[in-house]
Formats: sequence, structure tokens, C-alpha cells
Amino acid sequence: MSEESSSRTLPTLEALVTLCKRRGFIFQSSEIYGGYAGFFDYGPLGAELKKNVKDAWWKAMVHERDEIVGLDSTIIMHPEIWKASGHVEGFNDPMVDCKESKKRYRADQLFFAPVRVDGNTIGYVSVEESGTMQAEAEEMAAEMKRKQAVQGTLEAIELKDYTEADPEEYELIPSPATGKPGSLTPPRQFNLMFETRVGPLADASGLSYLRPETAQGIFQNFKNVVDTGRVKIPFGIAQIGKAFRNEITPRNFIFRSREFEQMEIEYFIDPDEETWPRVYREWIDTCKEWLVSIGIPADMVGEDVHPAEKLSHYSKGTTDLTFTFPFGTQELWGIACRGNFDLTQHQKHSRKSMEFFDEGRKEKYIPHVVEPSLGVDRTILAVLTAAYCEDEVPNDKGAPEKRVLLKFHPKVAPFKVAVFPLLKNKPELVESARNLYKQLQRRWNVAWDVSGAIGRRYRRQDEIGTPYCVTIDFDTIEKDQCVTIRDRDTTEQVRIPLDEVEGWLNERIEG
Amino acid sequence: MSEESSSRTLPTLEALVTLCKRRGFIFQSSEIYGGYAGFFDYGPLGAELKKNVKDAWWKAMVHERDEIVGLDSTIIMHPEIWKASGHVEGFNDPMVDCKESKKRYRADQLFFAPVRVDGNTIGYVSVEESGTMQAEAEEMAAEMKRKQAVQGTLEAIELKDYTEADPEEYELIPSPATGKPGSLTPPRQFNLMFETRVGPLADASGLSYLRPETAQGIFQNFKNVVDTGRVKIPFGIAQIGKAFRNEITPRNFIFRSREFEQMEIEYFIDPDEETWPRVYREWIDTCKEWLVSIGIPADMVGEDVHPAEKLSHYSKGTTDLTFTFPFGTQELWGIACRGNFDLTQHQKHSRKSMEFFDEGRKEKYIPHVVEPSLGVDRTILAVLTAAYCEDEVPNDKGAPEKRVLLKFHPKVAPFKVAVFPLLKNKPELVESARNLYKQLQRRWNVAWDVSGAIGRRYRRQDEIGTPYCVTIDFDTIEKDQCVTIRDRDTTEQVRIPLDEVEGWLNERIEG
Repeated sequence: MSEESSSRTLPTLEALVTLCKRRGFIFQSSEIYGGYAGFFDYGPLGAELKKNVKDAWWKAMVHERDEIVGLDSTIIMHPEIWKASGHVEGFNDPMVDCKESKKRYRADQLFFAPVRVDGNTIGYVSVEESGTMQAEAEEMAAEMKRKQAVQGTLEAIELKDYTEADPEEYELIPSPATGKPGSLTPPRQFNLMFETRVGPLADASGLSYLRPETAQGIFQNFKNVVDTGRVKIPFGIAQIGKAFRNEITPRNFIFRSREFEQMEIEYFIDPDEETWPRVYREWIDTCKEWLVSIGIPADMVGEDVHPAEKLSHYSKGTTDLTFTFPFGTQELWGIACRGNFDLTQHQKHSRKSMEFFDEGRKEKYIPHVVEPSLGVDRTILAVLTAAYCEDEVPNDKGAPEKRVLLKFHPKVAPFKVAVFPLLKNKPELVESARNLYKQLQRRWNVAWDVSGAIGRRYRRQDEIGTPYCVTIDFDTIEKDQCVTIRDRDTTEQVRIPLDEVEGWLNERIEG
Repeated sequence: MSEESSSRTLPTLEALVTLCKRRGFIFQSSEIYGGYAGFFDYGPLGAELKKNVKDAWWKAMVHERDEIVGLDSTIIMHPEIWKASGHVEGFNDPMVDCKESKKRYRADQLFFAPVRVDGNTIGYVSVEESGTMQAEAEEMAAEMKRKQAVQGTLEAIELKDYTEADPEEYELIPSPATGKPGSLTPPRQFNLMFETRVGPLADASGLSYLRPETAQGIFQNFKNVVDTGRVKIPFGIAQIGKAFRNEITPRNFIFRSREFEQMEIEYFIDPDEETWPRVYREWIDTCKEWLVSIGIPADMVGEDVHPAEKLSHYSKGTTDLTFTFPFGTQELWGIACRGNFDLTQHQKHSRKSMEFFDEGRKEKYIPHVVEPSLGVDRTILAVLTAAYCEDEVPNDKGAPEKRVLLKFHPKVAPFKVAVFPLLKNKPELVESARNLYKQLQRRWNVAWDVSGAIGRRYRRQDEIGTPYCVTIDFDTIEKDQCVTIRDRDTTEQVRIPLDEVEGWLNERIEG
């Protein structure tokens, strides 16, 4: 467990990855074939967690709002869309090739430094990774000094990324693959969109792309929704779906992967100058509130306002909601005021009007948009980070025992409740427990566990984040028709009548 | 409306496509760019319908069953998986090239016939489409006879598909593109998997595929689920997700598209000879029951048992559940007994054991599978086909008026209920209706409509399949605290107390 500056204790990324693998939340894709970098599969519990997160978002953003409608567009679309959106031209990362090893690096993730002894440069070192590799670079520098038998004091290493290198330096910086200089090329632009070919022809006419964002599926359907959806400005179109980016160095577990899922809204507004600042602020607040509503503590969420000089020419403002991940504070949710850039581009490329007739103003215009864009997988990682706890509770014999628990909000917990018969070899206990299990299953995903002592069963449910465990014991069937419900976080137990269980749970799960 | 042999009246495909476009169920992808063949987007109502179908399946197959767990694996996986599964070698369609026009045709969808006059062959005709083009081929034959000034009686044209042509015939069959013979190649195999390249390297090392089925994502995770999921044979792994096939001639709306969604289960069983026939039959019945549970009439579902000689070498049996679509009876759900072919192939290619230790038998084996595989989009098309009705009901003035309605089962209806204030300019009506709307929205997706006469509002909801409409009128707020609930199918109205509405609806929607 690493300490954060706040009083909160964060799990290490390793602890999360291990738990996710061990309990079937998340596996590396194609593990039996040695894995496949940048691709992750959601196992039985992860698939439930992910579905719950997506359902909660859809309910809050689409079902509970009058002015937002849903959409489910394809991953492969007409390639002209990506020309219009600017992705064919501009969706690039700078890449460096090592001509000798044939390896490729992202220039902004390849770091180098001159090695200086008493003010004289005796060579260069380079490492593939950022600041965390400082120590490695320093070791390499000391080794260089020793090998060259140079006397004097090594100066502190200051790593720069390769995009900051001078053209003359390219020749001097060693390739991290070979350790020798002379084989690295200058940075070149590399498009992050996955290409494919559609249709039976093998020539370039079928060139197409996997969408790198769901947003363009919304823009290209703007007219369809306006013509059929009985919408009035302001209104939003929401979409959840897969997107793909051929990241050169996928990293940090499911934080930056090559196949991921997005939840995006394009919120279309009046182009006047008063509307967007208000709507922009409303969306920042709405997004924060939603994160809190699924159990992410407000103190783990920050606001990162992009400075004006870093905004695209068409952008009026962008704020990232950040989250304190185990590997640092990083973007979770981007809220961007994109003006009318996208619709205007599609109007230009498709020659179809993207104007909206505003009944109130009796005027036509191309609406502006505010775009809240959230990654499903990043949200899952945030939920896991916030939920992960280790504490000590008394075991069956009253002795303190370490436990790992996931304090999921009931809304997102894979199982809402577990049902146990006290003993598995007593048919009357099992039958009564099965009846309750079947009753609760009509509403929720319910766990069933008959094996081991109750304490062990609690521990298993704690570790997968089940908020409540219900035990049917002999008193239930012989005496009081009551059951024991045990709370995951407090470990407190209450005894309530069997026929009140569903209502009791409903208040806590849906309330 | 076309008549079927049964008493049921089927809508034409055109009627469905038109309604889907007009009311925002389904749009052609990239319409503003002229469309993109084989890709369809789900609009606001279609996205809800699709989500409801998937949720109903997940609830029935995963949540309500003890022995089936979910999974959500990636679309792009290690390419070795598709070698192991046989898709790289064998997932092909026979293709024909026209060397002159550079057009490509699917050989089994390219039709030709010799033109015979009084027993003598005077040439060949060819058409791109199947039996429906018979008339076109006959016209072409008559034209050929006229041009060549041949006397005698034309014989009936019998179209054969190009895969049945003799090698000598290839030279004689005219290309449908040019009308002239000599330019068509013999059929060649064309792989239906979409290719892409993963990672920064541009060479063949990154060659990868978009999954053509979700099933292999399940098989490659078999060991992960066994190791973490506390499962015992028999058990199933269920998955819903996108799959992609580069169909040469996508057709029949969303029935055969290039990007589609599947709901698949791999149900792992004991390899003995008694188990599979029983489980196979159970799954055929379970699948049928599920279709009925979402409102598909049992009499529209048939069973098509694949004859033994058409089965793959490893298959013990396959049954398709068919559905009576507007374009004919076609496969909806395939239930296949695949033996242990897939796991054995992965064991061979990955060199990881796929054996399962059966606690009961104290024995290790590679389990066999029964695979129920269902297309989401085909299910949507079946639901739409079954739900589409035209009838006559009295309008506001009592005169008969034609209406179109979608008789969706409440489980899959995009909106479960609509709430109307009788008049939109009476704040007290609107306020009371809003309160009910907000209350119901906590549980369901609810429509709100204030514009036009109530009759017109009913008609709008009928056409999008909303089962119930609730109207708040002056009596509601001034007299009886009751509302009018109107039934979509019968058009009957009942008056019930405002505070009983949620319970009344709940019985009908969830019951």
C-alpha cells in the first residue's frame, strides 16, 4: 500500500491487478498465447461490474433526463468521416525507429540525457520509460564513466524526452535496444487509428478505420436524430461503445489499452456566447455528482482546466476530471466545449446541411456542443481503486484476521447480495435458502455459497465486494422465521424477518 | 403486407425499414456520406430496444442460472487464436473476379444459365442475384435470341450458381458487369475476417483480425474461468458482443450485416455419450422458451436439423431455430454440439492443458460443449417482424382510422409507459403528470408527450410500441385522484388511483 498526500491509503496497481486476476474480474487477453499487449478481458465478475457501471450511466444520463437520447452506432463507418473529423490527418503520435533492432518507440516516451563529468559531455544515455527510470539512467551513466576511465564528478542526470532532442543530437543518443548511438531516426508521425479493408476488393478503395472515439458516430447521425427524435435545443445524444487506438506503448493496466470502451455525450446548444459557459459548468458538476453516485469519493476527483494556449483553435474550453490512480493523478473524464467544429466539418465534407431550426428563435444555426467523454475502463479502474481496502476483523474464533475487501457501492457491485444456508448437508436449510435466493434473483444478481464456515464465506464475498450476506440458520426454519444479514463494511449483523428481506435490501440497493 | 402460408400476416421488409428509419429505430450507417453497405446504426429507440433484448437474455441466461457466468472479452485477440480455431484456413467464401471491370462477386450468389433454343445452346446469361432475378435472365436470353436472329422456341431458364459451373464453362459465362464472356475467373477462396495491424511495426508481425464470432473469446478464457470462477461441470460461459464478417454481399437489412452483435454461450459438459443428447435437447427448448418470453410467437419459430452429412467432422449435431422473416424462413439461433474440438485445438496451439478435473468422477478430461449462438440484430429483426401490425381504431371523433403499431412485449419495448397531461397549458395538470413521470422514471424508461390531441399521442406511442399510456386530466387533480391507463393492443382504458399506477404497471411489465 502506498501513501498518498491525503489521508487516504491507495492500493498499489499490483495489488489490484492480482486481485482482479485471482477473483475473475480482469484477465489479460489471450493469456494462453502469452498475452496480447493492450487488450484485457473482463471475467465473470468484471463483466458484471462493467455492465453495472454502464447501466448506471445510461440510466442517469438517458433514462432520467428528458433531453438526452441514446444511440448505438457502428465501430466501422464510412472513411470520409475520419477525414472530416481530422483524424486521418491529425491523430498521430511521434515515433522513433531503431534502424538496427527494428524496434519502435514513442518519441515522448523515450528519454535521454547527456552524461556530464565536471561540465564535459562524455556521451548520452537513454531509457524507454519516464521519470521512474531515473535510477537506471544514473547507473548507465556511472558505468559509462567507469568504462571510459574518466575522472571527476558525475553531474545529476536530467532526462528529456526525445521530441525535445536537437536534430544534431539524434546521431549521439544510443538506442535503448542496442545501447549504441547512430541507429535512431528523427521522430515521425504515426497514425493511431487501426486500419482495415471493407468489401471484397483488395485495393485501396476499401480502406477503412476502427473508430478511435464514439463521438463521430453521434455527429454523423445528428440529422437523423433531429429528423426523427422530436428534439429541441438544448438536447444531447449519448452513446456507449468500443473504440480502438493503436497505442504504441499501452500501459497502466486498463488505463491505456488499445481496445477500450467509451461513454460519450454530445450536448447540442445554442451558439450564443452566454450559453456555453453555463452548460460547461453544469456538465462538470453533473459528471462529478455521477462519479460520487457510484461510490467514488469526491476527494479523489480533481479538476484540471486546460490552459487557453493548449486548446485546439475551435475549442472554447476543456476541463478534465482527474482521479488519484495508484500510478498518479490522471485524466478520467474530459468535458470539452468543441464549438460547432465537428458539425461544420461534416457539413463541408458531406454537403448536407447540419443546421437546426430553432422554433423559439425562429432561426437556423449549426449548434455548438459540450462533450463529456468518459472511459468505461478508466471508470472501472477508479471504482476498483476507491473500493480496495485491507483491514482486520475477528475470525470465527474471535482472533483478528486480515481481510481484503472491495467497498463497492451497491449500484455497481457484481453481486448485490449472497445467500447462505448455514450448513450444506441439511436439506431444510438449503431449501429455505434456495427459495430466498430464487426470490431475490428475480431482481438482482445474487451469489449462492454453501461451502466452508460462514466466516470463510463472508471473506470470499468481501473480496468480491458483495455488500450483504444473508444466512438461513436453524432458528430461521424452526423458531423465528428470521435471517441474519451481515454488512460487508461494518461487519455488523442484523436479524430480520425472512419476508422483509427483499424490502430491506431494496431500500439499501436502489434507494 | 404479404401473406404467409400460416394465417399470420407478415409486414414487408420495406415497411419495417421505413418505420425503423422514420421513428429512429435503425439508420443506415454514414447516411450523410451515401451510406456504408453492411453497417447499420441503432437510433434512440433502436438503442433502447437492443439494450432491452440483451438485458433480457443476460438476466435469463446468466443472472437466473446458477451454472452460467458472464464474460466480456476483446474484439481483437492474439492472431494465433484464429489459426487454432480454423478461421485463418477455413473461414472463406468462394469469390469470382471480373478481370475487365475489376468487380468481385460471391460465386454462390452469381447465377448463370445456358440459353437453349430447341435444344441447342446459343450462349449464356448471368445475373448477380438469386432466384428473384429469373425474369431478368429470361429477358436477356430473349434479347440474345433476337440479336443472333435464331429461330425456334427458347427453353425455360434454369439458373445455377457459379460454384456449380464446369471449368470449361468459365470462359463462356458473361460477366454481369460487362455482359461479355471471357473475363470471369474461376472461384477463389476469400477470407471473411477483417484484417488489421496491431502495434507500431508496419510489417506482417502485427497482422491481426477482428473476431468473426464471440465464441473463441470464451474458449481462450476457459482456464481462467475454471481457475477463478468456482465452477463445476456442467457450466456455461456467456458473452454478448460485436463480431465482424466482411460479407461480400450484405443483405436483408440487419439480417446479414458486416458488423453485428452476438449472444453466445459455451456450455461445457461431461464428454460421455449420454450427456450431450440430453443437454442439446434442453438447450433447443430453453432457446425457444426464451424467444417466446420476449414476445416472439412460437408458431413463427421452426427447427432445422442439419443432416449428418453436412456436419463438420467434430460435430455431433446442429439444430437451427428458424424464424419466418419477411424475406423467408431463415436461421435465427444455432444450437451446435461441437464436441471438444475448440478446446483441443487451443490445447494443441497454446500447449496449455485444457483439461478439467471432475471432482465427482475424480477424473480429468477436456469437456465437450453445446453452443447456443444467437445474433442480436437478427433477434431485433424477428422482434420487429413479429410486433408489426396494421389495424383500424376509432379516432377522436369515433371515425375509423388506420394505425400502425408495434406489439412489443413490455420487456423489450423501448418505453414501458408514456405519461401525458391532458393539456399542456394547464400548469396543475402538467405538474401532477411530471410528478408521476419522475416517479416512474426511477424504474423504467418513460415517454413524456404534451403535444397534440390525446388520440394523436396514442398513435405516436402505438407506432413505437409503448404498451401503456397514462393520462392526467382535470378529474385527476380536482375529483378522484385517478388516472386513465390505455392499453396499446386492445385500446381499452381503465381508470385507477394515481398512487396505484406504479404497482399496476409493475405487475404487467415485470410480472
